[in-house]
Amino acid sequence: MAVRAAVAGASGYAGGELLRLLLGHPGVEIGALTGNSNAGQRLGTLQPQLLPLADRILEPTTPEVLAGQGRRHDVVFLALPHGQSAAVAERLGPDVLVVDMGADFRLKDAGDWERFYGSPHAGTWPYGLPELPGARAALEGSKRVAVPGCYPTAVTLSLFPAYAAGLAEPEAVIVAASGTSGAGKAAKPHLLGSEVMGSMSPYGVGGLHRHTPEMIQNLGAVAGEPVTVSFTPTLAPMPRGILATCTAKAKPGVTAESVRAAYEKAFADEPFVHLLPEGQWPATASVYGSNAVQVQVAYDAAAGRIIAIGAIDNLAKGTAGGAVQSMNIALGLDETTGLTTIGVAP
Amino acid sequence: MAVRAAVAGASGYAGGELLRLLLGHPGVEIGALTGNSNAGQRLGTLQPQLLPLADRILEPTTPEVLAGQGRRHDVVFLALPHGQSAAVAERLGPDVLVVDMGADFRLKDAGDWERFYGSPHAGTWPYGLPELPGARAALEGSKRVAVPGCYPTAVTLSLFPAYAAGLAEPEAVIVAASGTSGAGKAAKPHLLGSEVMGSMSPYGVGGLHRHTPEMIQNLGAVAGEPVTVSFTPTLAPMPRGILATCTAKAKPGVTAESVRAAYEKAFADEPFVHLLPEGQWPATASVYGSNAVQVQVAYDAAAGRIIAIGAIDNLAKGTAGGAVQSMNIALGLDETTGLTTIGVAP
Amino acid sequence: MAVRAAVAGASGYAGGELLRLLLGHPGVEIGALTGNSNAGQRLGTLQPQLLPLADRILEPTTPEVLAGQGRRHDVVFLALPHGQSAAVAERLGPDVLVVDMGADFRLKDAGDWERFYGSPHAGTWPYGLPELPGARAALEGSKRVAVPGCYPTAVTLSLFPAYAAGLAEPEAVIVAASGTSGAGKAAKPHLLGSEVMGSMSPYGVGGLHRHTPEMIQNLGAVAGEPVTVSFTPTLAPMPRGILATCTAKAKPGVTAESVRAAYEKAFADEPFVHLLPEGQWPATASVYGSNAVQVQVAYDAAAGRIIAIGAIDNLAKGTAGGAVQSMNIALGLDETTGLTTIGVAP
Amino acid sequence: MAVRAAVAGASGYAGGELLRLLLGHPGVEIGALTGNSNAGQRLGTLQPQLLPLADRILEPTTPEVLAGQGRRHDVVFLALPHGQSAAVAERLGPDVLVVDMGADFRLKDAGDWERFYGSPHAGTWPYGLPELPGARAALEGSKRVAVPGCYPTAVTLSLFPAYAAGLAEPEAVIVAASGTSGAGKAAKPHLLGSEVMGSMSPYGVGGLHRHTPEMIQNLGAVAGEPVTVSFTPTLAPMPRGILATCTAKAKPGVTAESVRAAYEKAFADEPFVHLLPEGQWPATASVYGSNAVQVQVAYDAAAGRIIAIGAIDNLAKGTAGGAVQSMNIALGLDETTGLTTIGVAP
Repeated sequence: MAVRAAVAGASGYAGGELLRLLLGHPGVEIGALTGNSNAGQRLGTLQPQLLPLADRILEPTTPEVLAGQGRRHDVVFLALPHGQSAAVAERLGPDVLVVDMGADFRLKDAGDWERFYGSPHAGTWPYGLPELPGARAALEGSKRVAVPGCYPTAVTLSLFPAYAAGLAEPEAVIVAASGTSGAGKAAKPHLLGSEVMGSMSPYGVGGLHRHTPEMIQNLGAVAGEPVTVSFTPTLAPMPRGILATCTAKAKPGVTAESVRAAYEKAFADEPFVHLLPEGQWPATASVYGSNAVQVQVAYDAAAGRIIAIGAIDNLAKGTAGGAVQSMNIALGLDETTGLTTIGVAP
Repeated sequence: MAVRAAVAGASGYAGGELLRLLLGHPGVEIGALTGNSNAGQRLGTLQPQLLPLADRILEPTTPEVLAGQGRRHDVVFLALPHGQSAAVAERLGPDVLVVDMGADFRLKDAGDWERFYGSPHAGTWPYGLPELPGARAALEGSKRVAVPGCYPTAVTLSLFPAYAAGLAEPEAVIVAASGTSGAGKAAKPHLLGSEVMGSMSPYGVGGLHRHTPEMIQNLGAVAGEPVTVSFTPTLAPMPRGILATCTAKAKPGVTAESVRAAYEKAFADEPFVHLLPEGQWPATASVYGSNAVQVQVAYDAAAGRIIAIGAIDNLAKGTAGGAVQSMNIALGLDETTGLTTIGVAP
Repeated sequence: MAVRAAVAGASGYAGGELLRLLLGHPGVEIGALTGNSNAGQRLGTLQPQLLPLADRILEPTTPEVLAGQGRRHDVVFLALPHGQSAAVAERLGPDVLVVDMGADFRLKDAGDWERFYGSPHAGTWPYGLPELPGARAALEGSKRVAVPGCYPTAVTLSLFPAYAAGLAEPEAVIVAASGTSGAGKAAKPHLLGSEVMGSMSPYGVGGLHRHTPEMIQNLGAVAGEPVTVSFTPTLAPMPRGILATCTAKAKPGVTAESVRAAYEKAFADEPFVHLLPEGQWPATASVYGSNAVQVQVAYDAAAGRIIAIGAIDNLAKGTAGGAVQSMNIALGLDETTGLTTIGVAP
Repeated sequence: MAVRAAVAGASGYAGGELLRLLLGHPGVEIGALTGNSNAGQRLGTLQPQLLPLADRILEPTTPEVLAGQGRRHDVVFLALPHGQSAAVAERLGPDVLVVDMGADFRLKDAGDWERFYGSPHAGTWPYGLPELPGARAALEGSKRVAVPGCYPTAVTLSLFPAYAAGLAEPEAVIVAASGTSGAGKAAKPHLLGSEVMGSMSPYGVGGLHRHTPEMIQNLGAVAGEPVTVSFTPTLAPMPRGILATCTAKAKPGVTAESVRAAYEKAFADEPFVHLLPEGQWPATASVYGSNAVQVQVAYDAAAGRIIAIGAIDNLAKGTAGGAVQSMNIALGLDETTGLTTIGVAP
């Protein structure tokens, strides 16, 4: 019997991508769709690409609507502004699977949360990056899932094998380019097409981006020691995609062969993370609309550094696809159900 | 039991999109993949978005390979340069379904073919635009299918209801914008990213584009009288999509209501062609990667013209999706199998 | 001695482009810069491309500021929302050259104005399209100039020679693609980069766009008879540029030669409008940042239509460059001062 | 009296941009224009944005043509494939200013040249990056100039103040995004618009890019000690622009204030390099078509790194603008003649 799923924040980019994936998921039936300022509107106006749902009307984002109002929701996806998930989740009961696509339950350290988000820490839920060591076990059967941020997904998956194998010094330097959908659908002048087309620009430079502590948490856990992260995000003139260039100084004795072997081992059984053949480098276009992560790694002997580069679709594997993948695990479904490794290109 | 399909021209954009769709088609198993200059290469190098086929090696495009070499192909898709399909098709036998994604068998008039293509006319096959009156009956059980051109798909579906209902004078004026993938994967200087980004430009102006006689054929058949077509294609800075703006002078007595009624009637039972609610206009982003056609129509009383605008994905509904749709009909499968109306947006 | 110029609306796209041109104009000194919601801000924050003016502070848009507050402004450019220019212009006195980049004084017919803009008609000023027959004489020495709309600039210059030579029937069908800067800098969801990149979409279809009556006015004046215009604007994924595809049924006896001769004659002495050699078609990239208009024309004998296609930079020749060109004429300067026909490409 | 300049390689992107700048240079008259495969063609076909030169015919690239054939060239710009400049330069005589926009004379170390270019080293000319300590003196009066690479221009100008002030450890980590024009006009499949639009991808990863030794040379000279460089270039979906994110570990005792002070001092008298106000970050759109470099710098105390980010136009300051700037110095003209700090935006 199909699982019935509600989506809070159905009018945004993350919500729209999630609905696209859920429409193709054989085990999911779509329940209530909610929005805030857009409640009462046809989804066809807000998400014109979702023709099968065009006549659905957005309901307000309230615990009652999300609880199902007499008709059960088995899963509730929350794509809400940060700080709003806890209050909703509390009202949904312990038997409902709540998948939070926001930041609220990602961080373990309350101080990190407060420093970067400026509000009280709501708690920590099992972290929805199944490829991390130990993550699948924590997700199986869980009723709460914190979906990772898009940058941390790309960065962690690109770099963790180097730390897992003890090859990298604990000082990572990361520069990532993201498509504009990562900044959401709220109309801001610097996100206008006129501004972003033909332009690359950085933001949140110098450790200010909120995804930084999440990367530090992930890489440090794998490394078994604290890892510093210099993270510079840049806005690229494309709607989707993240290309993460992740480098770290190699520990003594590292060779190109030992680096490649570590990556082959880390991704050998992964359905979505794919180490490209030597000489082929990832491009975001290749993972457009897919849940795949394409990774390549090099060892620069002259500079003494490991350079790992990963490409994801920020809305798919980086948000909604990652959410579905973790939902599958939490519900005991095949992890790949409703997801694809095939990109829409060119 | 799954149908086994070969694809000739698997390294190009049409071939790549076809493979993307066939990988998601529950009734198809992928057989031989062929190329010309790329024979012997890994598909993963040429189509990095198709991870499940990354290790497949392209074979040369010969009748023997396409015939299956002892192991039967039930369907052969031809994505070849024009003029090459007939020789291959002859060798494939009458029981194999041959779906030609090239132009060779689209035109009924040998003189039109010779004038626009400069070679002898190979013949005419059932025309793979199921939405046209009478088209489905001709496709059912057929072993030969001519897939329409991308522009004629967008234009015909946008404009035929006006002619079917007798509302439009037989002089159509059409301006269409296409993404660059419509020009194929051959490296030509004017198709470089540096040239096309930030630029709109026309080509084939004044009736020179080879898709013009196909539009004339389609619209004239529906109108029951000869229709002239002024067609101006333009190249737009995007990888995919066609936006076709199609106008014709209205016949006397036409009203906004009669125009809308004609379109509602024409598309009422169509699974892929969707008349948008009044006031909403199509955008190519909304059909990215999907087989949907989004259409809107207006009557400009001051100018006395009907303006019908349609958006398609040139590689999907405009080529590979149309091919799969017609294959489904020819094989007696549900017409929508393996196809979606959901776009990948933004 | 340099002319001193004020710019009202200096924070928008038209204002920014105007300042770029005025900074390179040897006869102009830049006076007050004003804005509304942005008054008090550094120009460097709002227009980071204008380094020489980075430390200028925007003043509020008031008649006092624009009048010069004791220090004279010889020219005042108004880049204001429609309906606001008249009140300001009245206060500036008859000796100040007022160049209105808005719509307020373009239309001659008060009914047209009221129908399309919904407010009382403010009047009609000499029309700043010098290439139109008689326009230069009206501009010389004038103290008031109405700068044409961007679409009417592209369309009129592309199509008027056909009407001036009596070659075209009075029913024009026009489809134009515009870069997103034509929609201004106000943050609206449908203008987000995520929405416009990779997408073409129409708007104002069916005669609803406010530039339609301006085209009718221009073409009718040249034709000497009323001309209907079916105008469909589309939004293209590029920051700048208009490509206008303009067609009209040819009158009896028209030939390819007579069409070309008419265009050669019309543009022979024009410094900015350039008829391309036969076989070469315009591209918006070629006029990026320049005041040039690149035009090509064809006669489609089969369809019986003239197709004239023009490319401009909507912000340059389509707005700010046209304003400077008319200012030059009004002030008795060389018409080309401070303007270029050289585009920034690729 | 105007200097007469020839341009070898006038059909490419660097040559076209150089001609755009020379057309606006008051002290330069344009002499012979040469090409190889394009000799005999109209420039208007190859560079349609350069209307004033549209009827010029490309001559073959020979020493005779470049020498002026009886009519003197005072300056010869070489935009040739690497390895071809030396043979041409030898034939031009010691009194002609030869400005090499290729790589041939940039590197001091013959071993570096041979390792990265695989041919014998031709020599070393004065290096055309006037902002580097000591560079102007070497350029004044010189008859030979080696124009820097585009990436080294962006990277060196962004990072050298940190080394000049002794603030950074000698291990730089650099990730830069370039527009596609940096890859030139030769038609290659991976540079097609269909491939690059909507996609970010790296190349030359792991120290393989030929601009790496040039950066090492520049930064090492400023630092006074060997500097290793981990350089990752990426291809961005835009025609022009480089955004260089340059980081280095800070030496002990470094503070945000000391970093900012070093940058303010380094750029205080520079006409083209501009340190943005705190909080404002560069965007490539802001320097489109201009010779400006917009730089911002931050100190990330948590990661202990300095992050300097610079934006240039790769064809302007990164190639042709840099060439003109150095020509001005070599000829004793004002360094800024014919150059602008004003970008074309949006």
